[in-house]
Amino acid sequence: MINAAGREIPASIQGYKEVILYAGPFATQPTPDARKAGPILKAVYPGKDKLLQSLDEAIEASGLKDGMTISFHHALRNGDYVMNMVIDAIARRGIRGLTLAPSSFLDNNDALIPYFEQGVITAAQTSGLRGKLGKMMTVQGLIKPTIVRPHGGRVRAIECGELKIDVAFISAPTCDTYGNINGAYGPAACGSLGYAMVDARMADTVVAITDNLVDHPICPVSIPQYQIDYIVKVDSIGDPKGISTGALRVTSNPRDLLMAKTAAKVIEYAGYFKEGFGMQLGAGAASVATGKFLRETMLRDKVVANMAIGGILGPFCDLLDEGLIKTLFDTQSFDARSIQSLRDNPRHQEYDCTFYCNPWNKGAMVNKLDYVVLGATEVDVNFNVNVMTDSNGIMMGALGGHPDASAGAKCTIICAPLLRGRLPMITDAVQTISTPGDTVDVIVTDRGVAVNPKRPDLIENLKGSGLPLMTIEQLRDLAYELGGKPAPLNISEEIVAVVEYRDGTVLDVIRRPIL
Amino acid sequence: MINAAGREIPASIQGYKEVILYAGPFATQPTPDARKAGPILKAVYPGKDKLLQSLDEAIEASGLKDGMTISFHHALRNGDYVMNMVIDAIARRGIRGLTLAPSSFLDNNDALIPYFEQGVITAAQTSGLRGKLGKMMTVQGLIKPTIVRPHGGRVRAIECGELKIDVAFISAPTCDTYGNINGAYGPAACGSLGYAMVDARMADTVVAITDNLVDHPICPVSIPQYQIDYIVKVDSIGDPKGISTGALRVTSNPRDLLMAKTAAKVIEYAGYFKEGFGMQLGAGAASVATGKFLRETMLRDKVVANMAIGGILGPFCDLLDEGLIKTLFDTQSFDARSIQSLRDNPRHQEYDCTFYCNPWNKGAMVNKLDYVVLGATEVDVNFNVNVMTDSNGIMMGALGGHPDASAGAKCTIICAPLLRGRLPMITDAVQTISTPGDTVDVIVTDRGVAVNPKRPDLIENLKGSGLPLMTIEQLRDLAYELGGKPAPLNISEEIVAVVEYRDGTVLDVIRRPIL
Repeated sequence: MINAAGREIPASIQGYKEVILYAGPFATQPTPDARKAGPILKAVYPGKDKLLQSLDEAIEASGLKDGMTISFHHALRNGDYVMNMVIDAIARRGIRGLTLAPSSFLDNNDALIPYFEQGVITAAQTSGLRGKLGKMMTVQGLIKPTIVRPHGGRVRAIECGELKIDVAFISAPTCDTYGNINGAYGPAACGSLGYAMVDARMADTVVAITDNLVDHPICPVSIPQYQIDYIVKVDSIGDPKGISTGALRVTSNPRDLLMAKTAAKVIEYAGYFKEGFGMQLGAGAASVATGKFLRETMLRDKVVANMAIGGILGPFCDLLDEGLIKTLFDTQSFDARSIQSLRDNPRHQEYDCTFYCNPWNKGAMVNKLDYVVLGATEVDVNFNVNVMTDSNGIMMGALGGHPDASAGAKCTIICAPLLRGRLPMITDAVQTISTPGDTVDVIVTDRGVAVNPKRPDLIENLKGSGLPLMTIEQLRDLAYELGGKPAPLNISEEIVAVVEYRDGTVLDVIRRPIL
Repeated sequence: MINAAGREIPASIQGYKEVILYAGPFATQPTPDARKAGPILKAVYPGKDKLLQSLDEAIEASGLKDGMTISFHHALRNGDYVMNMVIDAIARRGIRGLTLAPSSFLDNNDALIPYFEQGVITAAQTSGLRGKLGKMMTVQGLIKPTIVRPHGGRVRAIECGELKIDVAFISAPTCDTYGNINGAYGPAACGSLGYAMVDARMADTVVAITDNLVDHPICPVSIPQYQIDYIVKVDSIGDPKGISTGALRVTSNPRDLLMAKTAAKVIEYAGYFKEGFGMQLGAGAASVATGKFLRETMLRDKVVANMAIGGILGPFCDLLDEGLIKTLFDTQSFDARSIQSLRDNPRHQEYDCTFYCNPWNKGAMVNKLDYVVLGATEVDVNFNVNVMTDSNGIMMGALGGHPDASAGAKCTIICAPLLRGRLPMITDAVQTISTPGDTVDVIVTDRGVAVNPKRPDLIENLKGSGLPLMTIEQLRDLAYELGGKPAPLNISEEIVAVVEYRDGTVLDVIRRPIL
């Protein structure tokens, strides 16, 4: 079967739910009368002590059994100690066959490979997969295909019951003795707990793991006590220095800066740059740097943004303090500056992932974006974006909120260099579609800018910008001219991962490469 | 059948769900494996305009039909215009047979009587009933008995699906064009939206009604856009001066002040008055005034409370500012001072009603109370409290959080004068049990203090206080001596209301008085 993104998808995929084909970004609706899922009702009356002495006790108390689904949040990113620590404790108890459904995996989760190999974990659902773990899960694969979902798709799946979390383990930078949690304070403060808020609300059993256990009650409360079953104190939940490593960079690379300057110019001319606009800038180098150039334009034209959303980085906090942005909505704080801003500036608002980007609620914040600037590993002539697999077909990225913000924004701008090394990044067809071209408007490269022909309004608006406008085919031709047309990968038929669109349809599949 | 509070309850009650007898404050648990209810899943994709031109359009769009259940919140109390206005519009559309389930009724809802009489509204579920409406619903009654629930019982019923709200109409003091709401700003600012937050989260369709429509997005957000279907702008949602009328009084009555001083002394001696204690003082005159005397003790002994909760009044905000309370949790702001404090002091935290007092979650805030001071219309020798019916048996009060806080607190103190006029307030048996004596520890009257014999520890601790300790029977005898033993009311068999305990069991029934 061919889906609306032009991909061949099998009618059924072993180990995966019923296949529903991607039918366009806004074509699929919830089943009529379907209701939001809810966790098991529990009555905790006065006098119950939630504090347990060890992870072992908490795993015992949680009722975790073979075959269940567990979750973690990734706000501490590469600095998180909790996911590895808990799975280590679970493995020691002899529990097997778990589905692991964190909000994302990062490089530090390479330590989990032995637990996959030993059968402690037999399935995974995630937004991102990187490093050796990503390679293992692509090249060896698991019994069931890994489900890769954008942030909005994950919370949608949780809220409509497709992803039922039996036990959520929450890294809690500050936790009081009755389970109120925030991420703003503590030795491993991570800022927003936007992902964890969803898991705490929806999981049947929730275990808070903290290295900063304080008197009841705290202020502020990001995750309330009435969602927490058990609390365990450990020596350290992580190193916040690990938050701003990996994908998150502030760049001095001239190519990135050129693309950033170009993206800022696209924003200026595309038609939505006016008082009160809303924006998201992704965490990639060029996206982050766009803010720097946009700031100059905002100051010059005296244009103030009503909001900026997404994962939040320091430069946005500066704009907030300067009065160039009226309020920030933060689902993930990407650096020390944003953590401090979330703590100190009341206009820097923490919000959860359903509020940010769930397609199946009464209107997520991404719906109100005028602009989003995001990165790409690869873009094709249909404006499809790949951020998930590398040139060998190996999973090494994260959907994050990319498909969500792209669907929501009036103007979605993708920054990608024409080549990486000798490899063309604008191609006939991306290896994996992670964001469909239907939701992508402008491709910014270091050699030219292409506008989706579905948006003649943008093409018209950008004519006065002085930017080097080209067709996407011209960009591809230039890339092929400089780098050569890439040879097709040698790929088996075996499906190792399903890439879900935010609405739960199958956007693409990832097949095992033959290396 | 006799329930655990000693009341005769029929095995079935016409027009009411299956009767489950009250079995003690912590005896009843959710059905095993029962899950939290959820509203209908809706996918609102970009571009949808939620703003409608009139209440009429919103009622049409909401799909409201004969026989459905609608809800309102009462944060604007006697100043609210929205409930009457919306039901007026519903009546004009010819819709009939509705169940009306607001968080409470107030005197201003007497205007609804014609709609009950005309069959627009045929059933009611509420925390409180007052004025002519209360009299009408007791003396005439409705086809189904009115269900009277404490705040914690209402949110429990909503969250476990017993009270399914088809359409919630939310008075929104500030609302942006995509449905984000707060109660902190606007001409009819009411402070906390603790009740409305629950209805917005759980109702199938949610209509925001505002007189302060502002640009998207606002800061802070108390009710998020993703829970709101439609928005209607009206001239005025209410008069905030109406908040602090009725039940809420700051007193100069010497009898109230005496009881307040006594209650403060009970707090000092009962055993929990130490650094970090937690308290709630109800909205009654003596309860509020207790704060004034307690403040002096706290200053003298250098004891700071970790928290105060419940509906919040100005005196608590002063204690917060003085550093005598570390943080406030506010589910309902009872005066202009508390609204301003919620807006300006980050340690004054807004929270919703499930967090405050739902017995069926993983631990509500009432569970962490050391002390609560509350009022009573009547108390009996079993320490049962009545706040619901007057001496004629007519409904004229509100359970509010009374049963919830009483169940949660380590020491529950009830202030009631020995007599009102010539009527004894300490009796053999209260007319209606609204809070069971199992959860009441100390009765403070203007003539003496009685401690529940189930609490020998408190009796022991209070011996050093110098307070006039008496048995509850001595207090009753004194009351009868002064006022005469009240004659039993002439009451029919017909049940006009069911008083549910917070866990959904039947604590008592209210029968139609023969006047």
